[in-house]
Amino acid sequence: MNACNDTIAALATPPGIGALGIIRVSGSETIPIVNAIFKGKDLSKAASHTILLGTIRDDENTIIDEVLVSVFKGPHSYTKEDVIEISGHGSPYILQKILNLLITKGARLARPGEFTQKAFLNGRFDLAQAEAVADLIASENASMQQIAMKQIRGGFSNEIKKLREELIHFASMIELELDFAEEDVEFANRRGLVRLADKIQAIIRPLIEGFEYGNAIKNGIPTVIAGKPNAGKSTLLNALLNEEKAIVSEIAGTTRDFIEDEIHIDGIAFRFIDTAGIRETDDRIEAIGVKRTFEKMKEAGIIIYLFDLINESTDAINSQLKDLKASEVPYLIVGNKTDEADPNLKERLTREDTVFISAKGKSNLEELKERLKLCVHKSSGQSNTIVTNTRHLHSLQQTDEALNRTLKGINTQMSNDLVAQDIRSALFHLGEITGEVTTDDLLDNIFSKFCIGK
Amino acid sequence: MNACNDTIAALATPPGIGALGIIRVSGSETIPIVNAIFKGKDLSKAASHTILLGTIRDDENTIIDEVLVSVFKGPHSYTKEDVIEISGHGSPYILQKILNLLITKGARLARPGEFTQKAFLNGRFDLAQAEAVADLIASENASMQQIAMKQIRGGFSNEIKKLREELIHFASMIELELDFAEEDVEFANRRGLVRLADKIQAIIRPLIEGFEYGNAIKNGIPTVIAGKPNAGKSTLLNALLNEEKAIVSEIAGTTRDFIEDEIHIDGIAFRFIDTAGIRETDDRIEAIGVKRTFEKMKEAGIIIYLFDLINESTDAINSQLKDLKASEVPYLIVGNKTDEADPNLKERLTREDTVFISAKGKSNLEELKERLKLCVHKSSGQSNTIVTNTRHLHSLQQTDEALNRTLKGINTQMSNDLVAQDIRSALFHLGEITGEVTTDDLLDNIFSKFCIGK
Repeated sequence: MNACNDTIAALATPPGIGALGIIRVSGSETIPIVNAIFKGKDLSKAASHTILLGTIRDDENTIIDEVLVSVFKGPHSYTKEDVIEISGHGSPYILQKILNLLITKGARLARPGEFTQKAFLNGRFDLAQAEAVADLIASENASMQQIAMKQIRGGFSNEIKKLREELIHFASMIELELDFAEEDVEFANRRGLVRLADKIQAIIRPLIEGFEYGNAIKNGIPTVIAGKPNAGKSTLLNALLNEEKAIVSEIAGTTRDFIEDEIHIDGIAFRFIDTAGIRETDDRIEAIGVKRTFEKMKEAGIIIYLFDLINESTDAINSQLKDLKASEVPYLIVGNKTDEADPNLKERLTREDTVFISAKGKSNLEELKERLKLCVHKSSGQSNTIVTNTRHLHSLQQTDEALNRTLKGINTQMSNDLVAQDIRSALFHLGEITGEVTTDDLLDNIFSKFCIGK
Repeated sequence: MNACNDTIAALATPPGIGALGIIRVSGSETIPIVNAIFKGKDLSKAASHTILLGTIRDDENTIIDEVLVSVFKGPHSYTKEDVIEISGHGSPYILQKILNLLITKGARLARPGEFTQKAFLNGRFDLAQAEAVADLIASENASMQQIAMKQIRGGFSNEIKKLREELIHFASMIELELDFAEEDVEFANRRGLVRLADKIQAIIRPLIEGFEYGNAIKNGIPTVIAGKPNAGKSTLLNALLNEEKAIVSEIAGTTRDFIEDEIHIDGIAFRFIDTAGIRETDDRIEAIGVKRTFEKMKEAGIIIYLFDLINESTDAINSQLKDLKASEVPYLIVGNKTDEADPNLKERLTREDTVFISAKGKSNLEELKERLKLCVHKSSGQSNTIVTNTRHLHSLQQTDEALNRTLKGINTQMSNDLVAQDIRSALFHLGEITGEVTTDDLLDNIFSKFCIGK
């Protein structure tokens, strides 16, 4: 961390061959270092946010590449330091050569996330915002992208900072009381403190509760398709995937991490899990399969329970529904083979809020998708902000507990120094989220997960 | 080709996750199209070569990304059209989303190499220079990079263009003579034409001859290590590779195409080929191996012939040398195990220009490397310019043949229309190289080999 004044350099574009590749340099010596290998206009005379054409040359004056150089003068840059981006031809050999030249002139290879770490340390944004930069780069669907973008642009950071300031006010009042302990004065309004603690808890508890949903969105919502054998589960899965696959494959790069059974509906990833058909069986192997189906249903984010409207009786269906309702997982009841089904059966099932589809005929799949989306929005609760970072969750939980202790201390008229300690603890954990309280280890741990060049 | 006025867009950085990714847009509608999704300053008012900060938003005004936008106003851009580069966070999902938005606003996905094709069609550079851009991006070592860079910056293009203009002068004179065929005038000076044809051939023949060398440099020079069994071939290979491997692995990206047995010496790639030890044998399998060794030696760019200075006699060595000298491949005679060798043997071998090394002790490997480099420079001939492109080779050969026919026609006093036809043929093939003569098929074929976004 004490190397913060170094001038650092790294490849900022993905490795590999491309039309162009960008090397990013940041630090107080950025301009003299790049000037030493760049032949064109004098970079020290360039205005910020301008682009210059020139060549990169080695010490023998051999041209390594023709490049465009973008100049950002601190503090009007990502890191708030002088930053230069060298845009060269996308040959890994040439880019490495340019990087090596920068290093011979005094730059140091950047560690992963070090540009963003500098941005954080120089006050460009807080820690939660910095972390969201990595989330944004890793985002694979609209939900992840929106959560990360909101967080980069302030998100809950601002609210937490405001609450923390109010809490600091009470903390200092209570500390003051400690100084005047013998005089039994009360600077900190106890009722005000209780109100503030309630207010903070009212804000952070939905965030804690929304974490699971946020994480599901980040990783895809596990969606189990269950039902009796031959209800049409695989046909439904294929019908959903086939429609979607073309869309997914349009997105270059996502394909590499593509889960065979994942589809995106309006930016929300549903990770479909195929299951063995549920039935009582004497076959031991099949019985294991059925047992696993029940296990998967328990772990599911959503269950799509599929009925065969032709071959299953109302009684049979109703008995299955009972089991389903007993579970705590959100579920959708889906009647398949609707085109050939008995209208009476459909009528009776309508009361159960059933979606009627034909997986084979691909009819009414749009309604099924709408209902899947509704399921997600219902379980997201009222919170508009979503926490997806385990570190934030942990700090929020610690804050909540410290506030619980604070409230209990006030209620039971505990001594001021104990209450003050609990408030300090709440302040500490709130501050951890935005980085107002940090340690070098914490920062290293956070930024080491970034990619190089960011 | 008639779609040249379209505004095109493509990802210009390699696919995958990175700190940043760049989308390039070029065409007359670049600025209104990007303006439609960019919220920040009005791009139509931005000066060329400036960078603006802003956000990309979709039709619902949702922020897709915070980006930097670089503006290049035509003709001061790569394509000579208005060009904008959008630098976003390096998430494939986000970049694809931005690209999709550009397309909904009227841009078209660029074909591979289409930006460079536009640059060629708009006169930014000639065809040979455009092709060198692809070579530069593909360059994996200093030699390839230098050949491509020279070509981008003019290379033999300028010379060929000059020669072609002179030839055009003669062609038009001869065409004029055809118009006055009945009057028996001579506008074209026959001696001048012969001199020019000789001059052109004197320039293009070394280029033709240098092609093989150029290609070897492009693909790595096949370097066969041959010798009797136990001469220390593998030890030598390992010694060379071990020293080099660290250097090679430093170069990010080259590793993916890394040939296990390739080393770079001052930017020249040597592709080492291991061989079975040469000896007469009754073992049929081993005999096949030895036969293959001889085949590989014939195809080699350089042979390193290794002797065991301890266990091989002078007579045995001399008889092997005879065979080696009979071959046409450049070779290096290398005496191994020099540290333990008989000084007399070494003295006698010195006349043969032997390099003495110890592969095991890793001594004198530097001299071996220097000698390898010398071998390459010797076979490169006098030509300063190197042709590595098969298309150029073919056009040069066709030009040479057309000039031969022209000269023969003049010498045998063939009719003017036949001579004129041969000169036109030479002009055509010279023009193919720089693109003064092209067909749509040819261009499509050339640019389809480029990467997207260039």
